Amino acid sequence: MPKQRRASARQMPAILVLHGPNLNLLGQREPEVYGHTTLADIDAALAAEGARLGYAVRCLQSNHEGVLIDALHEARGAMAGVVINPGGLTHTSVALRDAIAAVALPTVEVHLSNTDAREEFRHRSLTAPVCVGSIRGFGWRSYLLGLQALVGVLTPQQGA
Amino acid sequence: MPKQRRASARQMPAILVLHGPNLNLLGQREPEVYGHTTLADIDAALAAEGARLGYAVRCLQSNHEGVLIDALHEARGAMAGVVINPGGLTHTSVALRDAIAAVALPTVEVHLSNTDAREEFRHRSLTAPVCVGSIRGFGWRSYLLGLQALVGVLTPQQGA
Amino acid sequence: MPKQRRASARQMPAILVLHGPNLNLLGQREPEVYGHTTLADIDAALAAEGARLGYAVRCLQSNHEGVLIDALHEARGAMAGVVINPGGLTHTSVALRDAIAAVALPTVEVHLSNTDAREEFRHRSLTAPVCVGSIRGFGWRSYLLGLQALVGVLTPQQGA
Amino acid sequence: MPKQRRASARQMPAILVLHGPNLNLLGQREPEVYGHTTLADIDAALAAEGARLGYAVRCLQSNHEGVLIDALHEARGAMAGVVINPGGLTHTSVALRDAIAAVALPTVEVHLSNTDAREEFRHRSLTAPVCVGSIRGFGWRSYLLGLQALVGVLTPQQGA
Amino acid sequence: MPKQRRASARQMPAILVLHGPNLNLLGQREPEVYGHTTLADIDAALAAEGARLGYAVRCLQSNHEGVLIDALHEARGAMAGVVINPGGLTHTSVALRDAIAAVALPTVEVHLSNTDAREEFRHRSLTAPVCVGSIRGFGWRSYLLGLQALVGVLTPQQGA
Amino acid sequence: MPKQRRASARQMPAILVLHGPNLNLLGQREPEVYGHTTLADIDAALAAEGARLGYAVRCLQSNHEGVLIDALHEARGAMAGVVINPGGLTHTSVALRDAIAAVALPTVEVHLSNTDAREEFRHRSLTAPVCVGSIRGFGWRSYLLGLQALVGVLTPQQGA
Amino acid sequence: MPKQRRASARQMPAILVLHGPNLNLLGQREPEVYGHTTLADIDAALAAEGARLGYAVRCLQSNHEGVLIDALHEARGAMAGVVINPGGLTHTSVALRDAIAAVALPTVEVHLSNTDAREEFRHRSLTAPVCVGSIRGFGWRSYLLGLQALVGVLTPQQGA
Amino acid sequence: MPKQRRASARQMPAILVLHGPNLNLLGQREPEVYGHTTLADIDAALAAEGARLGYAVRCLQSNHEGVLIDALHEARGAMAGVVINPGGLTHTSVALRDAIAAVALPTVEVHLSNTDAREEFRHRSLTAPVCVGSIRGFGWRSYLLGLQALVGVLTPQQGA
Amino acid sequence: MPKQRRASARQMPAILVLHGPNLNLLGQREPEVYGHTTLADIDAALAAEGARLGYAVRCLQSNHEGVLIDALHEARGAMAGVVINPGGLTHTSVALRDAIAAVALPTVEVHLSNTDAREEFRHRSLTAPVCVGSIRGFGWRSYLLGLQALVGVLTPQQGA
Amino acid sequence: MPKQRRASARQMPAILVLHGPNLNLLGQREPEVYGHTTLADIDAALAAEGARLGYAVRCLQSNHEGVLIDALHEARGAMAGVVINPGGLTHTSVALRDAIAAVALPTVEVHLSNTDAREEFRHRSLTAPVCVGSIRGFGWRSYLLGLQALVGVLTPQQGA
Amino acid sequence: MPKQRRASARQMPAILVLHGPNLNLLGQREPEVYGHTTLADIDAALAAEGARLGYAVRCLQSNHEGVLIDALHEARGAMAGVVINPGGLTHTSVALRDAIAAVALPTVEVHLSNTDAREEFRHRSLTAPVCVGSIRGFGWRSYLLGLQALVGVLTPQQGA
Amino acid sequence: MPKQRRASARQMPAILVLHGPNLNLLGQREPEVYGHTTLADIDAALAAEGARLGYAVRCLQSNHEGVLIDALHEARGAMAGVVINPGGLTHTSVALRDAIAAVALPTVEVHLSNTDAREEFRHRSLTAPVCVGSIRGFGWRSYLLGLQALVGVLTPQQGA
Repeated sequence: MPKQRRASARQMPAILVLHGPNLNLLGQREPEVYGHTTLADIDAALAAEGARLGYAVRCLQSNHEGVLIDALHEARGAMAGVVINPGGLTHTSVALRDAIAAVALPTVEVHLSNTDAREEFRHRSLTAPVCVGSIRGFGWRSYLLGLQALVGVLTPQQGA
Repeated sequence: MPKQRRASARQMPAILVLHGPNLNLLGQREPEVYGHTTLADIDAALAAEGARLGYAVRCLQSNHEGVLIDALHEARGAMAGVVINPGGLTHTSVALRDAIAAVALPTVEVHLSNTDAREEFRHRSLTAPVCVGSIRGFGWRSYLLGLQALVGVLTPQQGA
Repeated sequence: MPKQRRASARQMPAILVLHGPNLNLLGQREPEVYGHTTLADIDAALAAEGARLGYAVRCLQSNHEGVLIDALHEARGAMAGVVINPGGLTHTSVALRDAIAAVALPTVEVHLSNTDAREEFRHRSLTAPVCVGSIRGFGWRSYLLGLQALVGVLTPQQGA
Repeated sequence: MPKQRRASARQMPAILVLHGPNLNLLGQREPEVYGHTTLADIDAALAAEGARLGYAVRCLQSNHEGVLIDALHEARGAMAGVVINPGGLTHTSVALRDAIAAVALPTVEVHLSNTDAREEFRHRSLTAPVCVGSIRGFGWRSYLLGLQALVGVLTPQQGA
Repeated sequence: MPKQRRASARQMPAILVLHGPNLNLLGQREPEVYGHTTLADIDAALAAEGARLGYAVRCLQSNHEGVLIDALHEARGAMAGVVINPGGLTHTSVALRDAIAAVALPTVEVHLSNTDAREEFRHRSLTAPVCVGSIRGFGWRSYLLGLQALVGVLTPQQGA
Repeated sequence: MPKQRRASARQMPAILVLHGPNLNLLGQREPEVYGHTTLADIDAALAAEGARLGYAVRCLQSNHEGVLIDALHEARGAMAGVVINPGGLTHTSVALRDAIAAVALPTVEVHLSNTDAREEFRHRSLTAPVCVGSIRGFGWRSYLLGLQALVGVLTPQQGA
Repeated sequence: MPKQRRASARQMPAILVLHGPNLNLLGQREPEVYGHTTLADIDAALAAEGARLGYAVRCLQSNHEGVLIDALHEARGAMAGVVINPGGLTHTSVALRDAIAAVALPTVEVHLSNTDAREEFRHRSLTAPVCVGSIRGFGWRSYLLGLQALVGVLTPQQGA
Repeated sequence: MPKQRRASARQMPAILVLHGPNLNLLGQREPEVYGHTTLADIDAALAAEGARLGYAVRCLQSNHEGVLIDALHEARGAMAGVVINPGGLTHTSVALRDAIAAVALPTVEVHLSNTDAREEFRHRSLTAPVCVGSIRGFGWRSYLLGLQALVGVLTPQQGA
Repeated sequence: MPKQRRASARQMPAILVLHGPNLNLLGQREPEVYGHTTLADIDAALAAEGARLGYAVRCLQSNHEGVLIDALHEARGAMAGVVINPGGLTHTSVALRDAIAAVALPTVEVHLSNTDAREEFRHRSLTAPVCVGSIRGFGWRSYLLGLQALVGVLTPQQGA
Repeated sequence: MPKQRRASARQMPAILVLHGPNLNLLGQREPEVYGHTTLADIDAALAAEGARLGYAVRCLQSNHEGVLIDALHEARGAMAGVVINPGGLTHTSVALRDAIAAVALPTVEVHLSNTDAREEFRHRSLTAPVCVGSIRGFGWRSYLLGLQALVGVLTPQQGA
Repeated sequence: MPKQRRASARQMPAILVLHGPNLNLLGQREPEVYGHTTLADIDAALAAEGARLGYAVRCLQSNHEGVLIDALHEARGAMAGVVINPGGLTHTSVALRDAIAAVALPTVEVHLSNTDAREEFRHRSLTAPVCVGSIRGFGWRSYLLGLQALVGVLTPQQGA
Repeated sequence: MPKQRRASARQMPAILVLHGPNLNLLGQREPEVYGHTTLADIDAALAAEGARLGYAVRCLQSNHEGVLIDALHEARGAMAGVVINPGGLTHTSVALRDAIAAVALPTVEVHLSNTDAREEFRHRSLTAPVCVGSIRGFGWRSYLLGLQALVGVLTPQQGA
């Protein structure tokens, strides 16, 4: 059963952060590669950064494709945008892609690792073409950059 | 002849920002798609953000592959890292890829548009595998996010 | 949690209608493309047409691959045939294909849109080769035509 | 020389049914696979069903690509829509595809067999992308379903 | 070693020889490559060899795919077998392949040139898989060998 | 039945202009894309330009591959060169390619649209490699440029 | 809801056996191909063989990718190794592959059938490269061989 | 350093002619294939033909991709259109393609040789899809035809 | 050790017949498919037919690629031509291909079965492009036809 | 010259174990990867295990494809089954595949390493499809498992 | 700006050595891989070896494709041959290939590393097919071997 | 039976030179292409050059893949390095590649012709990636250069 972390501020617009399969192991598996940061650490950092930028951040991790799709459906009307790390589903799930496109919320795809430098089958993202953009390769910072990028899209009035 | 913009603060560590072919037209071509922000606007914003983060930012645009490679070579020892938007060379230049790998400075690849949602031949990046990571699809903000991502890589002591 | 709609007539042979991921959004997303017909409307129309043809129609929608496979398994012995719109799973799920083949009930694949005229990765159906046949591109009518085609297969004695 | 079968009712709107190469052998070749129904049987059933639905049905079979293209051209202005089984031309004829697109009548593609379950080269249809949709795998019933589907497209006011 | 069967005239079983597009130019185009033998010469030699073996030989050349298919259809019941040189249609015509398969007469494919040694697109034959076998590369002798091979298939009782 | 338009001047050398499938619809289909120029207009313009350059121009349109091949064969000895727009056959007909190569008249391929900018399957031309060259993308002017290019080939003595 | 079968001996090290989608139908579907052995039979045989070798064997079948991934995650620290038959997910699930790699327990892939001799899309296994090895084609014996192979890996001190 | 040839007439609208890598060798290399016409001859012929048609023609050759891109950028606002022979860059330069698209002047691609009849890697043009059209295979006449085609595009009022 | 069968007539020109791997099993394996004819039967029939045509026939079978290459080398100067059935080496041996090309004797490739109708990897022959031609699909008669074809090539003076 | 090791028990049914190219180096090359077990150790272990199971085991290693094929041929009638590690021939030898298929003895393919986790060209096995099954990745234990699997196939009466 | 090193002996025939992009970093980047030899060291060694063999050696390095092409053009008539290491341009530059072919001097391609053992995209060389031959994988010695190979080509009278 | 040529000097370290299939024909086949140099000439030249460099050179030619592998195995411990021209096996033999890798002697691959300029299937070398490097296209000099390159690898102390 997926855990859900809610920001306290109810009146702020909300952003959904979705973590796909295996990301619950973060900080536990291969720490010499991925560091000791856990998913709970990342969720806390996102909540803090969200609060600073004026957004409530709600996080959900699941190893079930269907749970992620359900969460996207429920976000319609309730959320301002989505930051998603689809994990291994990035490269195989047309259903997740369809869900992102159907819900039509501004969505930013993030990856911990630089997927272009890994195995061939990780080069193609089925979900990226229906997102606003993507951020890859900066470890847990990819999430923070993704949140900032999404807020930039939601409040485009801020000039260069 | 390429124009070069130097930050005043000499004692700060420096970051090189490279703009590849055709990016000098930014803000002039297809403003309904890319907006009215010019390359000079972006360079100014990067300099300001760099100063805030403690880095001098030096920007260079060229339509010549060789000029970009020369600039990467000269950055060795003189710069702390690189933000690069290789433009169309992203997909065709093994020489530029080799230059990034040989110089071995932390490098972040950025794109204005979401290249995964465009033509097939823009999906593969030859340069991304030798970069730390990449950021795609957030217009001129991709540059700011790229600068922030690079600084995050250069000062990794800051935890989540 | 998936909703299930049962036809009242218990003594009639039954047909299972399966709707895959994202089809619960029907009539809500992109109405200018897909029209205002909802999944509930389609289920009602199928029940009425089924009754006319002498079959009870049971409908199930889920965004979970596993739920769809479970439903197919349970249909063995209990149902006379299946109409399925696998949604995005059409192109990616060998497990769903295997389920259809293993259960060995006459199955008809339907699609709202003309998948051959969409993106390249939607041209290949993994599930169609183990179905009796497929019907593509007629909006909600694809379901009605699929039901009629299935009944034709179940009662083949009716000549031309 | 192709045979042409005209429905008696002249004042009804008309639908053209085109049968491509080798379909004249229907009911004669491999009856254990395709059954004993002949093309004449199918044409008669289509005429009857068309009459029931308020349409005159005109049928034409030819083994010549050019004859089929000519017939499509002549249907412009004279016919309300087309049901076509292009046979082997489905997979090889860009010219036939261009004819369907140029004439711009609502067209439904039908196949007796489930082409997705046959040889690799039969999986791609060059003509389906320019049709409204397609129906595959229901033997001679594919034609009846195709006719019904076309009438559904021609009279879209009938709701779910 | 096959035995030879002679018959005098009309009551002999018949073999159809089909020449595809451009073969009417034989002996006229590029004589330094293909020699001076014309199609009429070949047809005469086939008739003589056929008579020697106890078969009437009927030859037809056409540049029209449909004419060739019609001829195959008409051969059903009237002919004992077919020798065919489909010319350029060898590599592109699914309709011709279907005709050969549907008519189900023993068919031998022949080619003047060694198609495996020519352009890449001539290496694949769509028609050969539905023939008994094929003979390629012996100039006009390919036809004679094809006729002999077909007769060997038609009278298989003769041992080695 | 194809229409044939003969130039009055008999003693002038003649050029054959071949229009492939669907080009008879020119000026009638999608005028907002292709303009209101009909095939008859083009043929008249070609005749006038041919007369100016000292050549009789004979035009033929057919939707039948075989008719086009027959016409090429008949052009041998009777015509000085060929301008051909093979339409959809450009990408599928090895037989037409073989006919052009066998007849060995200087042939120029023309296309109304810029085929490189259209669907993937229109990028490869089977016929262009056996032509002198090709002209693509200038609407009906492609024909005039093709005629001029052919005359330039036929009278190569004129220097730069 | 998946069923779980526990060996009585608690103090023995444990091995997880995972059965992917559709394997619950074993012994029920196509007995002429797969025999009458059911999944319960296999689980019993595995428990007996495990006991003989000094390992408790825990078996789980699910049609849900997410349930299989959850089970792998929970096996970390609790199990000595894994025997998995991913069924149709073998060829499509990057998420399952990532789970096996992340959990980093010695894992052996088994298949009832010789997948190399079946359809093209069953030849590539996404999961095998992150397993110790694989065993394919020996029916239910593949499981016993897989268990023995895993025990061989877990206790490598036993020489040849 | 590239040479530039200016037409005297300043008040006429101007057309830029760009010659890519290696074209400066024209008339010097392989004269038995390409003839004795030099690039200077072609530029003179283009100037004369341009003057006849009311356009000043400015020609530039460079072996440097960047120089060609710079020249395209400078043509914006100053030129009415472009004729370009990108040489070997035709098949490899996304940057040049992007420059043509960004500058958005009507551009015609020309080639001396019939690239479709040469090596496989010369069949695909990256630049042609963003041009108005292309002309290939007529030697130096390709340039004249290209200039005429461009003028036809610039003054479209002239009917057939 | 390969067996070698020599024709008695020394003064006749000689033809080498090479049988590749596994052909020694002929008549013993799968007689319901390949018949009861053994390799010895075929060799005897070839010797008889060769004698009739004025050629001594020498036959060699080996399962070793190197032995076949050695035999080809020794045939230079001693033999007039070669009939070869390379068996499985047809599709994999560049070395055998090079041997046939280097020895430069007229060589005819024969196959018992219609390789185009078998597995995909049997469709390409590496050796056929350097042979005069090939004959496929007529069982042991393929050898006789191949011998006749070779003799036809060796004595080309015999007209049609 | 290959070495052959015979089990003493003559009256027991026999199993042939074939080792392909380079396996004679086992235990000598890269011991840190493959361990110190030699081929002689493996053969001894196989003989012992075979004796325990009631089978004489005869082992043969060769670097010659032809020797392996000869040995398979000789096994017909003399052996009950085959365990084969074809080494590098696994991926290239159609001849070896044909030999296995022709001899038609139950054959099990084994590999020391997990070939799916190595270079791309080692993923496809040409020989596995004609074997009963395969075992990959368990070092020398793959042979023991292969022997046990083969015995399981030879004596299928033993239940789960 | 590229540096140029001239041999003193003016009357000796001259050889041009071209170093492509990034080779100026030699001896500075990754010395543990490529050693401490710099480009200046290599140029000095080449000059010495050239003098020994009777040739003046002129070396040029550039990161600009255009500069390399210009240098090749200028070598015509002035140089006897070329040794070139095109670096990353080896795999991407059709323009460089065309320059080598057009200049038509004997050219030898050299690579420091064994490109066949590196990434897939480095396996194909666009330039090698128009060179005399290539030498790969011997570090700086590849240059010396390349110079010797070129001299061997220039003075072919020296027998084996 | 392969011939072996031994250098007289026993106390010198030795180098093995392997010639693959068909190279025994050198100087005899196609002398206008390959010249009149025979394999014996090359072996003599290699022995002389080896003596000059302080190495005994032993040469072996075979048309048998297994003989070449055996020779490589025997070279372990006895030879200092290998020069190999695998002939046609270059592109097809995984077993030969494995032998080179297993023996782990420094190995240099040489080719008489420039394989990159020949047929597509000769572009990929399976053996080169496990060699130190390769030399292609310099006729018999490729061997001498290969010997010199190998000696350079064996005695790396000699600086630039």
